[in-house]
Amino acid sequence: MTVYMDNAATTRVSDTAVRAMLPCFQNLYGNPSSLHTIGQEAAKALLSARETVAACLGCSFKEITFTSGGSEADNQAIISAARIGARKGKKHILSTAFEHHAVLHTLRRLEKEGFEIQLLDVGSMGTVTAEQVAKAIRPDTALVTIMYANNEIGSVMPIAEIGAVCREKGVLFHTDAVQAAGHLHINVREQNIDMLSLSGHKFHGPKGVGVLYTRQGIPLTNIIEGGAQERGKRAGTENIPGIVGMAAALREACDRIDETTEKVTALRDKLIAGLSQIPHSVLNGDPVHRLPGNVNLCFEGIEGESLLLLLDQKGICASSGSACTSGSLDPSHVLLAIGRPHEVAHGSLRLSLCEDNSPEEVEYVLREVPRIVEYLRAMSPVWKDLMNGKRKFML
Amino acid sequence: MTVYMDNAATTRVSDTAVRAMLPCFQNLYGNPSSLHTIGQEAAKALLSARETVAACLGCSFKEITFTSGGSEADNQAIISAARIGARKGKKHILSTAFEHHAVLHTLRRLEKEGFEIQLLDVGSMGTVTAEQVAKAIRPDTALVTIMYANNEIGSVMPIAEIGAVCREKGVLFHTDAVQAAGHLHINVREQNIDMLSLSGHKFHGPKGVGVLYTRQGIPLTNIIEGGAQERGKRAGTENIPGIVGMAAALREACDRIDETTEKVTALRDKLIAGLSQIPHSVLNGDPVHRLPGNVNLCFEGIEGESLLLLLDQKGICASSGSACTSGSLDPSHVLLAIGRPHEVAHGSLRLSLCEDNSPEEVEYVLREVPRIVEYLRAMSPVWKDLMNGKRKFML
Repeated sequence: MTVYMDNAATTRVSDTAVRAMLPCFQNLYGNPSSLHTIGQEAAKALLSARETVAACLGCSFKEITFTSGGSEADNQAIISAARIGARKGKKHILSTAFEHHAVLHTLRRLEKEGFEIQLLDVGSMGTVTAEQVAKAIRPDTALVTIMYANNEIGSVMPIAEIGAVCREKGVLFHTDAVQAAGHLHINVREQNIDMLSLSGHKFHGPKGVGVLYTRQGIPLTNIIEGGAQERGKRAGTENIPGIVGMAAALREACDRIDETTEKVTALRDKLIAGLSQIPHSVLNGDPVHRLPGNVNLCFEGIEGESLLLLLDQKGICASSGSACTSGSLDPSHVLLAIGRPHEVAHGSLRLSLCEDNSPEEVEYVLREVPRIVEYLRAMSPVWKDLMNGKRKFML
Repeated sequence: MTVYMDNAATTRVSDTAVRAMLPCFQNLYGNPSSLHTIGQEAAKALLSARETVAACLGCSFKEITFTSGGSEADNQAIISAARIGARKGKKHILSTAFEHHAVLHTLRRLEKEGFEIQLLDVGSMGTVTAEQVAKAIRPDTALVTIMYANNEIGSVMPIAEIGAVCREKGVLFHTDAVQAAGHLHINVREQNIDMLSLSGHKFHGPKGVGVLYTRQGIPLTNIIEGGAQERGKRAGTENIPGIVGMAAALREACDRIDETTEKVTALRDKLIAGLSQIPHSVLNGDPVHRLPGNVNLCFEGIEGESLLLLLDQKGICASSGSACTSGSLDPSHVLLAIGRPHEVAHGSLRLSLCEDNSPEEVEYVLREVPRIVEYLRAMSPVWKDLMNGKRKFML
């Protein structure tokens, strides 16, 4: 049995997306900048995809910039807002400590350039409130960038409220919606969002393509210079198959969002309830304001990596946190941000579900994880110390 | 009859590349950063593609960075070299006036930051010599960036000689090989190349993916910050289908390069010979050191855009210059760089061939182009003035 529960890392491309992409390789293969028919057919496909994405986000197609993915979109949004702010002498940026590295590392670069970066406390549940944002905004705040939903622990932020505060105070608001798009309702107008990033491969679209929504009138700074593609704001021949596939996947995800949410939430809650039975475990992230597909727990006395490898032997594909940092030995910056001690943070397990997962798979995982945790603990010197009282339990 | 002769703008994805990509959407769909089997299978495919590309370029797989395309690779190469230079107080960059905009616009940005950009004269043939480079290199030269082959007029630069000069003088050498890769032999060691950019969709690979080769020991500057992908130098989940498809296409192009060159060169020369019969026309670019598939002429007294639209009505897909700037009304910066007057530069036609073009297509184009040129001239007031002596012919 192979159980893929790492959909927050990446998803299998849907049949719909593959079907949409296939004609783009050998029929609609033109360069949309070309004047001839083959080029103009590609340009039409590009426009149609742009309109589809815009409709899914509740904005105009003119506000959509296609990028190579969520990271690029995050980088460009933040750099652009920083440049706008700097021109007005505003060099304070508000964010949180548990953003994706595409945000945090871009902020770190800006810090070196003289920006002041303030990371809001996300509390033990991994959320921020609009009040926190309202209190922290200063006259020199150039940007608030707060993720829609956390990629590791699944907490969902009150984006519309945060957006309203920012709008009222005249501060630009960007949200990294990479984990939210296709899974949570998005309407950038109603939610007062000025800039939003998403990535195709997180909702059964292809890898290598993403979107930066930017409210009309907000000037973007190029991070890739060159040709005049994307209104001159993102150079490079447009990735037509990727863009068309992403648009098809987003359309499908948005159309089915309510039924998917219902199905996936039920599976998630069963997993959380079952795995929480494991002694000395704790759920990470907000139990209520949570991505439908996110399960994340810490188990004391074990190493997450060993857990993953043994789960993999049982055909269960999971992760300990973000795939993007899985090469690193450091514990997750997200788990540290919600106050987990280092030792506990090391023993984390993330299962991220999608609509293709079944109740049988959930049953299987609920049988295997407790066994493997028990097995690992039996071998662990740390666990021995905990059991014989030489160490104190933290969970 | 549909004749696609705009392969310098983009190419039809080959069967080989499509076959290589297909399993990556729904089988090899893992995130290569994930520890589990599905992730590690994707990681293997990524490594294999990296080795393939490295073998095609004559370098180590460790020297390959995958990007979203040629523009991003050009941007990152130049920014990286500039940062290295600046740390040593070197702020002079040598290039040419007819580079792609991905190079020229990046250089313009660096100029604003205080770099001195010197653009070498490319003469009437559109080439530079190693001697020109040798003479222009100064003690404070940080980078020489010169394209391998020009995208509009097809001139091929003496890259190995230029590389040797740079190596001898201890100056970094980058070449934009977007038009050369898959069409001209590349061996970065033998050709003394420190950094090289290429783009998948110019040799029957997919759009949205490219390569930056960087000689080991040259530190890259990120232009996309975030996760630790690509040795920490290019954040974002790797575009596995794109990368795998590009590698397969490059492998195929390199394997067939000699037979393709022979076939395409013959078609090209037939087109050049035939179209040069049109009165008051001129070939643009070096007649000898020329991309196998490039045909570019100017016809006095006509507008290139009208010519393209009428050709399109006959099913012939061509361009007047670079697709990336086709929205612009300005004449090609490349044609101006080789000394064509504005009026003449406006009347350009680029036909770019590939191995799928046939002698019959060439015959067809050789029948249609002269007719359309004649038709357009008959309607042109400029042509009337030329014919009755009110204006002087430039060609």
